[in-house]
Amino acid sequence: MTLTALAEHEDKAAALLPAEVYDYFAAGAGAETTLHESRTAWEHYRVRPRVLRDVGRVDLPTSLLGAEVSSPVVLAPTAFQGLAHAEGERATARAAAATGSLLALSTRSSTPLEEVAAAGSAPWWFQVYAMRDRDLTLRLVERAVSAGARALVLTGDTPYVGIKRRVTGTRIAIPDDHFLVNLQQHLDPGRADARRAAEQDPTITLEAISWLAEASGLPVLVKGVLRGDEAVACLDAGAAGVVVSNHGGRQLDRAVPSAIALPEVVDAVAGRAPVLVDGGIRSGLDCLVALALGASAVMVGRPVVWGLAAGGEAGVVEALEALRADLTHVMALTGAASLADLDRSLVTATSIWSPL
Amino acid sequence: MTLTALAEHEDKAAALLPAEVYDYFAAGAGAETTLHESRTAWEHYRVRPRVLRDVGRVDLPTSLLGAEVSSPVVLAPTAFQGLAHAEGERATARAAAATGSLLALSTRSSTPLEEVAAAGSAPWWFQVYAMRDRDLTLRLVERAVSAGARALVLTGDTPYVGIKRRVTGTRIAIPDDHFLVNLQQHLDPGRADARRAAEQDPTITLEAISWLAEASGLPVLVKGVLRGDEAVACLDAGAAGVVVSNHGGRQLDRAVPSAIALPEVVDAVAGRAPVLVDGGIRSGLDCLVALALGASAVMVGRPVVWGLAAGGEAGVVEALEALRADLTHVMALTGAASLADLDRSLVTATSIWSPL
Amino acid sequence: MTLTALAEHEDKAAALLPAEVYDYFAAGAGAETTLHESRTAWEHYRVRPRVLRDVGRVDLPTSLLGAEVSSPVVLAPTAFQGLAHAEGERATARAAAATGSLLALSTRSSTPLEEVAAAGSAPWWFQVYAMRDRDLTLRLVERAVSAGARALVLTGDTPYVGIKRRVTGTRIAIPDDHFLVNLQQHLDPGRADARRAAEQDPTITLEAISWLAEASGLPVLVKGVLRGDEAVACLDAGAAGVVVSNHGGRQLDRAVPSAIALPEVVDAVAGRAPVLVDGGIRSGLDCLVALALGASAVMVGRPVVWGLAAGGEAGVVEALEALRADLTHVMALTGAASLADLDRSLVTATSIWSPL
Amino acid sequence: MTLTALAEHEDKAAALLPAEVYDYFAAGAGAETTLHESRTAWEHYRVRPRVLRDVGRVDLPTSLLGAEVSSPVVLAPTAFQGLAHAEGERATARAAAATGSLLALSTRSSTPLEEVAAAGSAPWWFQVYAMRDRDLTLRLVERAVSAGARALVLTGDTPYVGIKRRVTGTRIAIPDDHFLVNLQQHLDPGRADARRAAEQDPTITLEAISWLAEASGLPVLVKGVLRGDEAVACLDAGAAGVVVSNHGGRQLDRAVPSAIALPEVVDAVAGRAPVLVDGGIRSGLDCLVALALGASAVMVGRPVVWGLAAGGEAGVVEALEALRADLTHVMALTGAASLADLDRSLVTATSIWSPL
Ligand SMILES: Cc1cc2nc3c(=O)[nH]c(=O)nc-3n(C[C@H](O)[C@H](O)[C@H](O)COP(=O)(O)O)c2cc1C
Ligand SMILES: Cc1cc2nc3c(=O)[nH]c(=O)nc-3n(C[C@H](O)[C@H](O)[C@H](O)COP(=O)(O)O)c2cc1C
Ligand SMILES: Cc1cc2nc3c(=O)[nH]c(=O)nc-3n(C[C@H](O)[C@H](O)[C@H](O)COP(=O)(O)O)c2cc1C
Ligand SMILES: Cc1cc2nc3c(=O)[nH]c(=O)nc-3n(C[C@H](O)[C@H](O)[C@H](O)COP(=O)(O)O)c2cc1C
Repeated sequence: MTLTALAEHEDKAAALLPAEVYDYFAAGAGAETTLHESRTAWEHYRVRPRVLRDVGRVDLPTSLLGAEVSSPVVLAPTAFQGLAHAEGERATARAAAATGSLLALSTRSSTPLEEVAAAGSAPWWFQVYAMRDRDLTLRLVERAVSAGARALVLTGDTPYVGIKRRVTGTRIAIPDDHFLVNLQQHLDPGRADARRAAEQDPTITLEAISWLAEASGLPVLVKGVLRGDEAVACLDAGAAGVVVSNHGGRQLDRAVPSAIALPEVVDAVAGRAPVLVDGGIRSGLDCLVALALGASAVMVGRPVVWGLAAGGEAGVVEALEALRADLTHVMALTGAASLADLDRSLVTATSIWSPL
Repeated sequence: MTLTALAEHEDKAAALLPAEVYDYFAAGAGAETTLHESRTAWEHYRVRPRVLRDVGRVDLPTSLLGAEVSSPVVLAPTAFQGLAHAEGERATARAAAATGSLLALSTRSSTPLEEVAAAGSAPWWFQVYAMRDRDLTLRLVERAVSAGARALVLTGDTPYVGIKRRVTGTRIAIPDDHFLVNLQQHLDPGRADARRAAEQDPTITLEAISWLAEASGLPVLVKGVLRGDEAVACLDAGAAGVVVSNHGGRQLDRAVPSAIALPEVVDAVAGRAPVLVDGGIRSGLDCLVALALGASAVMVGRPVVWGLAAGGEAGVVEALEALRADLTHVMALTGAASLADLDRSLVTATSIWSPL
Repeated sequence: MTLTALAEHEDKAAALLPAEVYDYFAAGAGAETTLHESRTAWEHYRVRPRVLRDVGRVDLPTSLLGAEVSSPVVLAPTAFQGLAHAEGERATARAAAATGSLLALSTRSSTPLEEVAAAGSAPWWFQVYAMRDRDLTLRLVERAVSAGARALVLTGDTPYVGIKRRVTGTRIAIPDDHFLVNLQQHLDPGRADARRAAEQDPTITLEAISWLAEASGLPVLVKGVLRGDEAVACLDAGAAGVVVSNHGGRQLDRAVPSAIALPEVVDAVAGRAPVLVDGGIRSGLDCLVALALGASAVMVGRPVVWGLAAGGEAGVVEALEALRADLTHVMALTGAASLADLDRSLVTATSIWSPL
Repeated sequence: MTLTALAEHEDKAAALLPAEVYDYFAAGAGAETTLHESRTAWEHYRVRPRVLRDVGRVDLPTSLLGAEVSSPVVLAPTAFQGLAHAEGERATARAAAATGSLLALSTRSSTPLEEVAAAGSAPWWFQVYAMRDRDLTLRLVERAVSAGARALVLTGDTPYVGIKRRVTGTRIAIPDDHFLVNLQQHLDPGRADARRAAEQDPTITLEAISWLAEASGLPVLVKGVLRGDEAVACLDAGAAGVVVSNHGGRQLDRAVPSAIALPEVVDAVAGRAPVLVDGGIRSGLDCLVALALGASAVMVGRPVVWGLAAGGEAGVVEALEALRADLTHVMALTGAASLADLDRSLVTATSIWSPL
């Protein structure tokens, strides 16, 4: 399984999916500057390998908030996978289990969370939004707990959905039966404001972290953090970890790339909690750079979606295996036999970014 | 109203206007390096958003030298709007009033200033040049005061009109009845040197600031400032504020972009007076960056001209609403609920510019 | 006379001249990296103008080693102008005189130096190489002194002629009657090694400076200096000034651009002697940047050649007037009324260049 | 012989060789980012020449670990030259001898090392891998010693062969009779794991250095070093020198370019041992920059292969002479008469690279 699988999957997805669905998955906000940079920013780093180290065996397993995983590549929460493949999140969950990968399931899944949890046997996290109807939020979280979620991922970068020019009228494009699939059982049939009730509540604050932690008894990670001070604020407010992310370029255009924000967040967090990162990770080198900069793990969004669209469960497995194989190979060429060998001295940056 | 309106307006304007008129509005000086950079320099900044802040309501109203405005987006003084639309500055003034925006009216308006002032009810400023005939200058300023101008904007970057290669022979292209419309009443019929008398006087100095302030009793802002020390010199000479501007790239080519000059000016002014900025502002993100860098407000020139050409008053309203809506959206995604939340920590720059 | 004249001249020259002659004048050494950068490096600077200064009159006259000139734009020594126009250096000298400009005449002129000196009445300098036949060198210098040269310009960057890929076999391309025109009278008819005797001597050292100064009684400037320490070494060895130059990209490819070397040289020279600069100067802004960085004057090479090819004396006058007019205009827009107003605070650089 | 020979050789090679062979030689690993940058990184440096130095004679001879060579341009070890030309490494060795250049012979030569050694009379080094079968390694090294190798070059950047997308299935493409040519005599006929036994052993460590040094009695250089600390670790482990290299972009993609790593390695080594460098050296200017940054010598890989493919021994001689002539020319224009005149003050960098 080689890395070319990822590009092939996307090509296949583009051929198989209706154009507006492909665009929905592929699009970024605004002028798509951040979408573009989410990938290229990883390429601004260069690797400074070690030589003549024993790399006869390269180890990827790690643990994330107590969950043992076979590699530091986590499946990012992405909405509406039923639009990509008939099996939707079920196929994704089986692929996660097959590869021993951690799955972060989106609140906006096209499949009820219990069915997703039942499909796969690997550890999983549940991504939440604090919805306008707080009660709805709590009931969803309770179900996630019952279904075995090991942590909550509170997405903090989406008080409103980012405007994607490629996809005019996103809200209309996603039909209610997709949008509300996880909530349907809690909604009185015919409730007029159902959709609005399920929208992200733009008035929430950092207090939502401890509210969710207490309600669920689970660790809460905040996703969408791009500053060191914000990461610390989240931890101080009760977060058990952060995900450095700009939502794959889908929310605030011209947001700083994750690859640039990561070192600052790692430094500020200073080992208090795991720091994950996502956005544009497409190769073992991207993973290696992220890990060398101090990430505990990386998340991949679209590669999973394209794998799913191109080949269902098998496609997702292929994508995950390709990344794992590529990471193993480049770690060996870098003289690193385990994740512990990945330190910041392994990377250097081209001088494109600088503080003001 | 989405941001795409702005580009659509320009396309329409290009289709509707005679080529030489379109070029007159669009052109920059010299090789148009500064014209080009006036836009791209804003894109050199990236945004570092906050997360989980209450942005249920985002407030844009502010006050500028005592004038209450609905948003920090001000209409820059642009000459000869009668060439863009039959209603000219009257339509612009009505749009400013309709949106609660501050209008800065050009000395070179195609409509007598009294008629413009009568058309709109929002607060307005009058842009002046110290003309070769100082007396003419004073009489014009007196009329602006009578018509209700709240401040004067003395444009300091135009001792001579910049040479625009796209528009050979600018002076000839603008007919006298446009050039002299605001001055006609003061000119003896047939005065041979009328046009020259009305030209900018290249011999004026910083003393023109207090001269105008005393003559008018109004606060005087200096427009065209691109250095911290120059801003301080203007304030020391009696200015009530400055506008960081290179005249939209129409005067000195290779002038430093406003986006680069702004932080230096803000630091030097150190809160003594409002600092406005213009040049290439085309989106909520451009506004947000300017405000985060410390601007009190931003001015837009061509977007107003294109809106006017494309749809008269309604077009200008559309342009202003689109910017306001976009600014509101990106402020929310940045975690900022009011202008006071916009501080410099929200932005970081790519390392293209550095001191010598 | 506007700046577009310069580009028009080059277009005309390209149309009028035989391709190999055009290429000879236009070419640079190696991959032409330095040729290209000799122009673009000036564009890496941006201007920080002053406002509201009295620029009713902008003064360009200055003096260079005692010679009064109407502007700081000097005609660089360029060889074989007879290939560009039948009148060759005579036309150039008349244009220099007509515009009050200083002419630096090349040792490799197509016209005997006495005839050039007689053609124009403006002050002129004579560019020399220390030739393999030192005696020949001295006799040439004596004649320059008799003909009224005010200074010698010893070109230090040409121990061998740079290899220009566009012009294979340069030495063959330039016929002997051009190459030896200034030396013919000193050569025994039929002297077999005439051409070799007249070549630059690659073994000369800094001592050539005082040797020439003593032999001629004239001030000697060294041309081709690109480092501060080298400038100081030249002055310590008796030079009366330096010209920061990489020979218009015709000698060492990948040499640092003059625009980048200039500030370092100015700082090292620290006012002890005039520092001129050339390479890629094509506009008033290029001149302004050079002068603001501390140059006493600028030299232009190809613009003079193209003007000459396109229109003889009148073409050279046009080129010089266009540069002067453009410099006057941009100085006014920068708030500078005289050369003394041009200081380093007027420029800032994009961060492309940095020390190792 | 001019530099254009190098590009002509590659064009000819592309025309003459089967596409897959051309691709095998030309390819880089991964996205070929490092392959590309291995050349362009040299161009990020600019040269700061001296003037008026005696360069009537420019000297290139030097000595490397006791071997006298006519120039600091060394032939890098490149595998399977029999695929490029029927004469293979024999032709290369004769060319090295003819030009007085040092040859580093690859373990993966298409010609038994004894025959190569016999073909040329110049000093040569032998490049080794510690193979999975250590015994095989020792026997090969013993033969190299007997055949007169002056040093061993232990390649440290190839625990596994880099994945080249242009060449799918590299291992298959190289037939066994090429791969094992140097080992055939030690392999029992029909040994099933022969190829695997001859592969690089990924478990070796820095201790391999002293193991090889002791076994051979020769100085051992480590090739593939890209960090100062790694260079020091190699020397501390017994290395007699290092080669700054990323294997011509064929191993770890996104590895830092040699041109960027070189100064750091030179500084860390601090004169304890020779530092060679390779990757993308294609001109006298590339050589000059490398030497000015502190390299003792440079190695060239593909230029030799293309010369060989294009013209056998004569082609390699042409390539080496072209580089030597070009280096001589640019040294003269830089004011450097010998390698000792090349110091770091001669170069400056554009600010693309910076530490994290
Ligand atoms: C189609 C799509 C839907 C997404 N839906 C969600 C979501 O429901 N919740 C969430 O927190 N992030 C969501 N994300 C963001 C991803 O979790 C992740 O941050 C992003 O995809 C990472 O970038 P990448 O796609 O370049 O790997 C979505 C991303 C995509 C592409
Ligand atoms: C067609 C046109 C006419 C202008 N006329 C004036 C003017 O009369 N007085 C003035 O101070 N600025 C004038 N300006 C400059 C604007 O006030 C403003 O600085 C500039 O347009 C801002 O850049 P923007 O067009 O990119 O928004 C003019 C600009 C344009 C485009
Ligand atoms: C065709 C040509 C011939 C030249 N001949 C000489 C020369 O004989 N002596 C000399 O010192 N410089 C010579 N130069 C260099 C010029 O003096 C000057 O450094 C260079 O042209 C400046 O760059 P520019 O052409 O971009 O203005 C020559 C340049 C050109 C283009
Ligand atoms: C076709 C090819 C085969 C190579 N084989 C070897 C090898 O067997 N051993 C080794 O140490 N390096 C090998 N190298 C790397 C070279 O020694 C050298 O590092 C590289 O070619 C330098 O880059 P250049 O080709 O741009 O000059 C090989 C390179 C190429 C292009």
